[in-house]
Amino acid sequence: MTGGKGISPCLLKKFILKNDFNQLKFHIMRKSSAGLVKTQYYTFAAPPNGMRLESGKRLGPITLAYETYGELNTDRSNAILILHALSGDAHAAGRHSSHDRKPGWWDTMIGPGKAFDTRKFFVICSNVIGGCMGSTGPESIDPRTKKPYALRFPVITISDMVQAQKHLIDHLGIKKLFSLSGGSMGGMQVLQWTLSYPDMVRSAIPIATAPYLSAQAIAFDEVGRQAIISDPNWQQGQYYHSARKPAKGLAVARMIGHITYLSEESMHKKFGRRLQNKEKFSYRFLTDFQVESYLHYQGDSFVKRFDPNSYLYITKAMDYFDISRGYRSLDHAFRNAKAKYLAISFTSDWLFPSSASREIVNALQNNYKDVSYVEIRSSYGHDSFLLESAVQTNVIKKFLDHLLREI
Amino acid sequence: MTGGKGISPCLLKKFILKNDFNQLKFHIMRKSSAGLVKTQYYTFAAPPNGMRLESGKRLGPITLAYETYGELNTDRSNAILILHALSGDAHAAGRHSSHDRKPGWWDTMIGPGKAFDTRKFFVICSNVIGGCMGSTGPESIDPRTKKPYALRFPVITISDMVQAQKHLIDHLGIKKLFSLSGGSMGGMQVLQWTLSYPDMVRSAIPIATAPYLSAQAIAFDEVGRQAIISDPNWQQGQYYHSARKPAKGLAVARMIGHITYLSEESMHKKFGRRLQNKEKFSYRFLTDFQVESYLHYQGDSFVKRFDPNSYLYITKAMDYFDISRGYRSLDHAFRNAKAKYLAISFTSDWLFPSSASREIVNALQNNYKDVSYVEIRSSYGHDSFLLESAVQTNVIKKFLDHLLREI
Repeated sequence: MTGGKGISPCLLKKFILKNDFNQLKFHIMRKSSAGLVKTQYYTFAAPPNGMRLESGKRLGPITLAYETYGELNTDRSNAILILHALSGDAHAAGRHSSHDRKPGWWDTMIGPGKAFDTRKFFVICSNVIGGCMGSTGPESIDPRTKKPYALRFPVITISDMVQAQKHLIDHLGIKKLFSLSGGSMGGMQVLQWTLSYPDMVRSAIPIATAPYLSAQAIAFDEVGRQAIISDPNWQQGQYYHSARKPAKGLAVARMIGHITYLSEESMHKKFGRRLQNKEKFSYRFLTDFQVESYLHYQGDSFVKRFDPNSYLYITKAMDYFDISRGYRSLDHAFRNAKAKYLAISFTSDWLFPSSASREIVNALQNNYKDVSYVEIRSSYGHDSFLLESAVQTNVIKKFLDHLLREI
Repeated sequence: MTGGKGISPCLLKKFILKNDFNQLKFHIMRKSSAGLVKTQYYTFAAPPNGMRLESGKRLGPITLAYETYGELNTDRSNAILILHALSGDAHAAGRHSSHDRKPGWWDTMIGPGKAFDTRKFFVICSNVIGGCMGSTGPESIDPRTKKPYALRFPVITISDMVQAQKHLIDHLGIKKLFSLSGGSMGGMQVLQWTLSYPDMVRSAIPIATAPYLSAQAIAFDEVGRQAIISDPNWQQGQYYHSARKPAKGLAVARMIGHITYLSEESMHKKFGRRLQNKEKFSYRFLTDFQVESYLHYQGDSFVKRFDPNSYLYITKAMDYFDISRGYRSLDHAFRNAKAKYLAISFTSDWLFPSSASREIVNALQNNYKDVSYVEIRSSYGHDSFLLESAVQTNVIKKFLDHLLREI
């Protein structure tokens, strides 16, 4: 086998001689992919005790949907936990069936020979609590009422998400994670893990994230929530058994989100002022510009896969996130951190700008902790952590390989 | 009289001796204010001809609400036209009654001794067509149906707004404007005036504006419009005689707008992560943060004064704005411009960034036109053009005084 793509020169020659590039593409895809994967479920925190949340309330039972890629080694020392962002799920890599049009959301980063190399590591990804992709959230059945929780679901925090993941990691028999990584809200969970369970984390890779959500980002979240709860079809969150769903409100919330995930530069390059399927302005309230069409598409497709109440709960968890809460200062918060950190940010990300990553790095340095920081030049805005695989792969591979050699 | 405040040392001494600081404050306010002002109305373009719009449709009759401050000189050479932004109106300076809590929207810039000095200039400001502050717009009565136009109102452009203003300037007997100024959409009108009627404009001061609306700004506008038309109370725009108004949709649109008018830095300084009237998180879907409370207030108060349909029409006019449309290039567009330009932008404005003003300046320079450009350091974001009066005053005063000396 040669290189990251795992294809031998002999096989390569065979495909080229037979002029069979589709087969070649498929072979490369299969060889570098986590392959066919299956979502698993772990249920814990049975009532009446349940799991105690940061708010003081108790939640139980809790189910976490999760997937794993690669093999856990005999001393269980090669596990890497991947944490997802606002709209993500447990399906980070591979395909659920050979007919799947799309692989998992971070498939470019997880697989044989990739940044999180499944030939070396046992990679885990779980859907957060509060979500709607298999883990317990507002659309789950409340055991007390036998109906969906809706707004009776307790408000959760990033720290609660991490506490639930810790149950899963214990269940998998892993005493110490080799590494943790995730972008955006995933990065918040990475930071929280390193402070909640410092002895369980060897290294941490927070990407495109911040030590606390900024006023501007809270503002965007709140407008999105207002769009949802202003939709009369929201019905105080009690829409699960109704024919009317707050689809329009959720679509508007998602459209706002998408503007913040791109950069002005990337929108200019991608759409500019180009018109959508027309030569002239409509002079009506129709879709004139490509950028409008893009946003409509993003809004409409999100509505098909996401629960509006989950959108409320998860954005609220992000708003509440401030890693220094309960400490005297940000510096103080990181005093007991034990992980080795690699922070990554992107030049055009204005939702989680490089300055926010630098605050994390500075606080760690002020505590004489082991931290590397890479700012990657990219025009993709906040979405860069999902799109800039090549540079991220290079940086993360080196970081992890270096750690492997230390053991 | 001394300085811009117009108060004599003798009078100042009198107030201080009498310890009457309220009287002093009132006196200073009155002396530097445009004083009590009254909105006037001019109606033209009677049907059946009306005024031909860029879309090819005809609109008439058209009423423009306008105000004037200062005196027109005998040769009618001292008129300055002020153009307002998205949510502005004709009431740019002074007060409508002595009980008015607030003066006009640019009162810091227009008045005796101010940037647009009403002791020297005759200052005019008119509400745009499509608006809802006295000029003809979607809530006006359609003479054909005797009912509000609603969506039968034709889609208008920045060029249409300017064409209507030209009728007003003709009506006032002014052959050539001494200057034109405005921020944001007001700046778009400034640019359009200099190209539509180059012989009628001596100088032009476009502030915090752009030669065309960016993809990102179109995106924000479209999300705002979607929030309005997704509100079932919008009723296809036919809400004027209904008890139900699309207030929630308009509030969401305004909240989105407000985030784009501030900067991340100003939001951080103004609100940070401070909680609103509470010590701890609510762990409910209530207003936790001050920034949320600010946005709710802005959304709610906007709903009381603005027509949702006008919001649709005016944002669409901004989206359509591209000063180079119909020309081979931006450079080509400015080839026949005759005005002397002063462009102003603000460092923290990300909606109409300095780079957009520089595009205007470069295009003018490539045509060997007379153009000055000032980038003002400010943390207020796009709102800077309404808030940074001191530096703007200094720059604009010098520009206008220089022009006065040239005559």
